[in-house]
Amino acid sequence: MAEDAKQYALDKHREWQGKIEVITRAPITTPEELAVAYTPGVAEPCLKISENVEDSYTYTRRGNLVAVVTDGTAVLGLGDIGPEAGMPVMEGKCALFKTFADVDAFPLCVRSKDVDEIVRTVELIAGSFGGINLEDISAPRCFEIERRLKEVCDIPVFHDDQHGTAVVTCAALINACRLTGRELSDVRVVFSGAGAAGISIAKLMQRMGVRDVIICDRTGAIYEGRDGLNPEKAEIATWTNREGVKGTLADAVRGADVFVGVSAPGVLTQDMVRTMAADPIVFACANPVPEIMPDEALAAGAAVAATGRSDFPNQINNVLAFPGIFRGALDVRASDINDDMMEAAAYAIAGLVDDEHRAADYIIPGAFDERVAPAVAAAVAEAARKSGVARA
Amino acid sequence: MAEDAKQYALDKHREWQGKIEVITRAPITTPEELAVAYTPGVAEPCLKISENVEDSYTYTRRGNLVAVVTDGTAVLGLGDIGPEAGMPVMEGKCALFKTFADVDAFPLCVRSKDVDEIVRTVELIAGSFGGINLEDISAPRCFEIERRLKEVCDIPVFHDDQHGTAVVTCAALINACRLTGRELSDVRVVFSGAGAAGISIAKLMQRMGVRDVIICDRTGAIYEGRDGLNPEKAEIATWTNREGVKGTLADAVRGADVFVGVSAPGVLTQDMVRTMAADPIVFACANPVPEIMPDEALAAGAAVAATGRSDFPNQINNVLAFPGIFRGALDVRASDINDDMMEAAAYAIAGLVDDEHRAADYIIPGAFDERVAPAVAAAVAEAARKSGVARA
Repeated sequence: MAEDAKQYALDKHREWQGKIEVITRAPITTPEELAVAYTPGVAEPCLKISENVEDSYTYTRRGNLVAVVTDGTAVLGLGDIGPEAGMPVMEGKCALFKTFADVDAFPLCVRSKDVDEIVRTVELIAGSFGGINLEDISAPRCFEIERRLKEVCDIPVFHDDQHGTAVVTCAALINACRLTGRELSDVRVVFSGAGAAGISIAKLMQRMGVRDVIICDRTGAIYEGRDGLNPEKAEIATWTNREGVKGTLADAVRGADVFVGVSAPGVLTQDMVRTMAADPIVFACANPVPEIMPDEALAAGAAVAATGRSDFPNQINNVLAFPGIFRGALDVRASDINDDMMEAAAYAIAGLVDDEHRAADYIIPGAFDERVAPAVAAAVAEAARKSGVARA
Repeated sequence: MAEDAKQYALDKHREWQGKIEVITRAPITTPEELAVAYTPGVAEPCLKISENVEDSYTYTRRGNLVAVVTDGTAVLGLGDIGPEAGMPVMEGKCALFKTFADVDAFPLCVRSKDVDEIVRTVELIAGSFGGINLEDISAPRCFEIERRLKEVCDIPVFHDDQHGTAVVTCAALINACRLTGRELSDVRVVFSGAGAAGISIAKLMQRMGVRDVIICDRTGAIYEGRDGLNPEKAEIATWTNREGVKGTLADAVRGADVFVGVSAPGVLTQDMVRTMAADPIVFACANPVPEIMPDEALAAGAAVAATGRSDFPNQINNVLAFPGIFRGALDVRASDINDDMMEAAAYAIAGLVDDEHRAADYIIPGAFDERVAPAVAAAVAEAARKSGVARA
């Protein structure tokens, strides 16, 4: 960003004094109104909920309320800047929830990096919310925190950095395959980046029918038996790279149909793109500088290019997913956001780009396409019902 | 409450679907606005806060945000109904904060009754807020929770059931004494009720100059050496009842200037009022049925009567205190809400009833008197500055 743009962002944040605000929905301007919204009237909904805790969804804000929780350890590209410093991002996330899907979201920054403490803290306040959105928590801690919270909470727990990214990337892949005449079951997808996002995208792709996935880290392709794999990567090797491809990223992408970059600037060269299968698909999502610039990828023969940036076509942007996903989950009081719901979200996003309009520079709707959140919400709610996690 | 009023309150709560709502203060309607409120612009305030955590008050909502925290163990007169069932009260409290003092307040119900867990949970999320309002937590746990949280938090922690009540009761006492020509230093105050509210009121009165306090429980006056005192009451005996008065409540109130009831319906009889000093002051705050009905107290000779009810004059209502107290504390970024600030709040409330208007049926402003919150906020901010806890 240019210095003047940075200063402008800072000035606006100072002017806003916070990007969220808690207002009241109950008028309290007379003693009569006070007696309804507070004592003695408030005793009635309290008693109803004490008889049946599910009534908390009827008489309190819980049914429209999501906690956005971080420990500040992996904030944007800034890293471990601490819980308070992560708050502007969390408030921004809450603003997006409200703007795009009328979901009330409240940011909570936890002053601990201890997995047990973070899990217990969220578990203890879960009764105040209808869902938990985990955000910007560093790997591998984010995996354990999410897994354990899903076990102990009776409300949906969703780590957007993993699953939101996976949903939108899969939506883009669906349309890129349609555009280039491919079936998901036939493509080889090579990842650069073995972090939380890469793993989550790869898992959702596999679930949606992709059978041939190779994940590369800085060393190169991850395969069973590679020297020095840490436990997370050894686990990755058990469900990817079925042909045991070895070598560098350059070796791995040779002949591949799809490149997915969730790693570092510039790691994919034009020469590497030229070695891929015909009409290759290149998703270069490192931010702000992608693995390869989209115009370079296209010049080297890519049929489709996508990035995480708003200044190029085909932005893979989580805002296409998380507002509608939680909207749908809340609408049916879902107890979980499961794989069925994520897959449904991906197809719903992809489905908004119809055959007539689908093109190399339009495989995914724009962030401000107002059809997105309602379509995602409807598909997610339906998938929740079918998979048995809807409670209303 | 009549059945139709109960049903009306229930219907309104269902219609509201929550008495709070989280909205956004940042417009996000274009890619340009998104780039300021979210990535990449949001990185700038994040970096500022990571350099200096105090900047969280400048660039996030923290400086206007209070957590209303309960464990649901002492909700209204309903008792231990659980955290979710306490939520309508907490949301109501948040609505009052916003309505009366433009303080954003967010309700959190903690699913634990364990003091250590509650303290740790609140401590870990304290960086997201500018203050903590504890609510409806049962005694004696509420004392330890408040004490420990005040130690570990760098933001104000305030248990409204104790201190809000104390501030408003002391405000009423100030004017009742002015009306009846008494000095605080000369009155004997007898309490019925040795719970959290009674103890807190007695302590603030002593601080404000009252030297003669007797606290009665169901057995009667608490005095040093009384058989079977639990630790809390043994402690009370060390700083009250300097003359060692023994006997029942009826014995204790004989000759007393002031009765403060925070106990149970009907425990003060007209005959007992008749044994008090001339022009006695009777605050009967049990809710909804007071220790003595105010018209009965007046008929038996009371010079002034106050209750907790909105349908009689002189309502001792916490809403006169907590919104303005937090408003003032937040305005100067106070690190604590200390005794000086509470005393200042009491005098500010009392001061709004001037000599000309002060009367037996007007010793305290009404709940909807718009002068109250600003006056309390100004006095509290000033006291915070003078006592060295203001940070801005």
